[in-house]
Amino acid sequence: MAQKPSTPKGMRDFLPHEVARRSYLIQTIKNQFEKFGFLPIETPAMERREVLFGKYGDEGDRLVFKVLNSGEKVKKADLDAFSEGQLSRFSNSISEKALRYDLTVPLARFVAQHQNDIQFPFKRYQVQSVWRADRPQHGRFQEFTQCDADVIGSDSRLVELEFVQLFDAVFTDLGLKGCTLRVNHRKILSLLAHQSGAEDRVASFLIILDKLDKIGWDGVIKSLKEEGFTTTLVEKLRASESTSMAPSQKIDVLADLIDPDGTSVAAFDEMRFLFSNFSLASLKVDFDWTLARGLDYYTGTIFEMAPPEQVKIGTIAAGGRYDDLTSAFGLSDMSGIGVSFGLDRLYLVLEELQLFPKHLAAPIDLMVVQFDQEIITQLMPLLHRLRSSGVKIIVYPNPTRLKKQFHYADKLGIPNVLVVGSEEFEKGQGVLKNMLTGNQKTISLEALDASFFQ
Amino acid sequence: MAQKPSTPKGMRDFLPHEVARRSYLIQTIKNQFEKFGFLPIETPAMERREVLFGKYGDEGDRLVFKVLNSGEKVKKADLDAFSEGQLSRFSNSISEKALRYDLTVPLARFVAQHQNDIQFPFKRYQVQSVWRADRPQHGRFQEFTQCDADVIGSDSRLVELEFVQLFDAVFTDLGLKGCTLRVNHRKILSLLAHQSGAEDRVASFLIILDKLDKIGWDGVIKSLKEEGFTTTLVEKLRASESTSMAPSQKIDVLADLIDPDGTSVAAFDEMRFLFSNFSLASLKVDFDWTLARGLDYYTGTIFEMAPPEQVKIGTIAAGGRYDDLTSAFGLSDMSGIGVSFGLDRLYLVLEELQLFPKHLAAPIDLMVVQFDQEIITQLMPLLHRLRSSGVKIIVYPNPTRLKKQFHYADKLGIPNVLVVGSEEFEKGQGVLKNMLTGNQKTISLEALDASFFQ
Repeated sequence: MAQKPSTPKGMRDFLPHEVARRSYLIQTIKNQFEKFGFLPIETPAMERREVLFGKYGDEGDRLVFKVLNSGEKVKKADLDAFSEGQLSRFSNSISEKALRYDLTVPLARFVAQHQNDIQFPFKRYQVQSVWRADRPQHGRFQEFTQCDADVIGSDSRLVELEFVQLFDAVFTDLGLKGCTLRVNHRKILSLLAHQSGAEDRVASFLIILDKLDKIGWDGVIKSLKEEGFTTTLVEKLRASESTSMAPSQKIDVLADLIDPDGTSVAAFDEMRFLFSNFSLASLKVDFDWTLARGLDYYTGTIFEMAPPEQVKIGTIAAGGRYDDLTSAFGLSDMSGIGVSFGLDRLYLVLEELQLFPKHLAAPIDLMVVQFDQEIITQLMPLLHRLRSSGVKIIVYPNPTRLKKQFHYADKLGIPNVLVVGSEEFEKGQGVLKNMLTGNQKTISLEALDASFFQ
Repeated sequence: MAQKPSTPKGMRDFLPHEVARRSYLIQTIKNQFEKFGFLPIETPAMERREVLFGKYGDEGDRLVFKVLNSGEKVKKADLDAFSEGQLSRFSNSISEKALRYDLTVPLARFVAQHQNDIQFPFKRYQVQSVWRADRPQHGRFQEFTQCDADVIGSDSRLVELEFVQLFDAVFTDLGLKGCTLRVNHRKILSLLAHQSGAEDRVASFLIILDKLDKIGWDGVIKSLKEEGFTTTLVEKLRASESTSMAPSQKIDVLADLIDPDGTSVAAFDEMRFLFSNFSLASLKVDFDWTLARGLDYYTGTIFEMAPPEQVKIGTIAAGGRYDDLTSAFGLSDMSGIGVSFGLDRLYLVLEELQLFPKHLAAPIDLMVVQFDQEIITQLMPLLHRLRSSGVKIIVYPNPTRLKKQFHYADKLGIPNVLVVGSEEFEKGQGVLKNMLTGNQKTISLEALDASFFQ
């Protein structure tokens, strides 16, 4: 019985023209990573389960894909946990590995593991897939590619500044204007939470604030009150807001309202330094005290990039500083900071705005028509010579109707077709047809070289 | 409590110098794939479980990693199967997806699913990771990268011939001489099995023959007898062997012995055609009637590439023709053939033979020393200009001791270091030091451009 061929939900195949566009994006981002001095690493798709869990918050933990133990090892299934409805404990009893959820926690593990083989400050980039058991929707997939750059082992605020320049350089290269980078600082948020009565419930406070986009201000205020937070300060901040204020003004107003005694002056100063030093070509950058970011591990500056307003899609790049992630793996005092570009969403943005270059390199330069197997085998030294000088050649594999072969070349967008019949072959000649202009000319096979296809 | 940072067994991290070498290998192979007219596709890491199972043989099925259903979906656990010791049925009840085991079965699924969006014959290449729950050992990993090229929808024997040329082209580009490609044909093997009394047990016969490397001839003959096969023919074939015979002679001798009536003349003719038409620069190619290949789906020509004799490692590339793989997904009459390069083993071979190029592009061209944050922010327009013209620059993030900063540049192999102290900066100057020669000179910052780093 034949099966219906399909991919798992939220996961996708990529056809050749899509791979070409994805490669263009990846190459553009990699080029800038390298210009900013980042070096590439790779980590395995799977990590030991305990490496990943407990780093992303409850919501994140739920979305990590677990890999089932192989063979006999499922015998360890904890049936008591199952019958008690402790599904997570049950799952853990038969699963030692999990698929990476992001590239940041694997990086922290990598840095701790290879600390004697790398140089600090460690600047690395990494372009790999990640997996999340999330509900699929437009721009949200269960498998997607992240392009990350991080610096581990420096608390310099210059690094934040360079990341803003890096964002700008990538978007400039992609011809993507009108993106907005929102910036905030976790210590400022934390101070706000404390002033609102959060004490040891800062995470709960941030989770509510993070829902602003979805539930609006009324919803946020209501939820905060329900959870027992005071909302006076949040309402004051909201009232003080004005879109016409420059970021540095916003920072000053915020500092006056939530930190009148200057106990967290360093965080505000970091923001002031950042906003007074960049010069940008493609980006808008704004300070936004409501930006929270979901992930648990951030401790300092946080970034979030929105696409141009006309494109209805979520965050396309984001990041932030995490002061203590490597200490979970036994390496302390290593402040880290990183950013991540979401390849799959960037793809949708460039597609919607028609920003992909029209011609991303001809995938095939020449098709050789086949009349007869014998002639093709005789042409092999010629094909070898042309390929050695860089020409991309497809030989039509079967001697089918000429019309069908030309249709194939046309469909694949192959710009040149070579026809060598037996009479021509005797004379050392062939007919080269330009599929774009329709022109064709008889040429000497001996004289045929790469210059015909440039 | 800090965790011990480690990767799961059989899975590896790649440091920057390893990524550079892997990229070199991948790029070399991709270039040749493109020169032979293959187009790139990608498929998801996970497939629906039923897509993968039943295609690789029992041994293969056992090595597929299953992904545990998320959240509530583990409630469907078949506890009866568990208590009856039916571990595989139990696993299946809580696992709908699995990680790809190779790139061939996903390709068959892809071709059936996208048959209206692609052109046949479909020539695709694919470079992605695969996962196998295999016992890790030297050159065998649980996660590794395959570089595959396949042609779907042509039964032309020219395709086999082009694959031999492709193997040769790749190894020539890598400077790897002395590899041996062994070739056989599943229909010939199948005929041999039938002549030895296999009837409907061809697979069992092949499994024993496939163990020749491990158990030797005595072991093979013994096992065949134990399984009730007759061994007269196998022993005759073995006696007829001589290393001095050319492949075409071997094919003739074999045909005489196992196919005196010429019932399978087509398979022998395919082999004769192949061996009389290639011309090679780096490879040895031999016909080997004992070559079986483990995977169930092969039906015609099979290939297996051994590294040069002095390197003790298994197969580094392999492939074959599969006449009917897409029909499992509802698309029949689509003969396919493909080859796969094992990136991770090729890496080990090139490393052992010291064949990697010494300089795989300088990862970073210039390090800027930091005395003082203020000067660096003032230098940003210069850095922007240099980066825009292609220079890869790292700014040392913190104003630490000069010695430490130079040590860092040295360790990372950065060839140039720029030092701009406050006095120099006032004069618009800096000191550029060549780390390889030790020479240093005072330069005008305004005049500094990409030509300094070529």
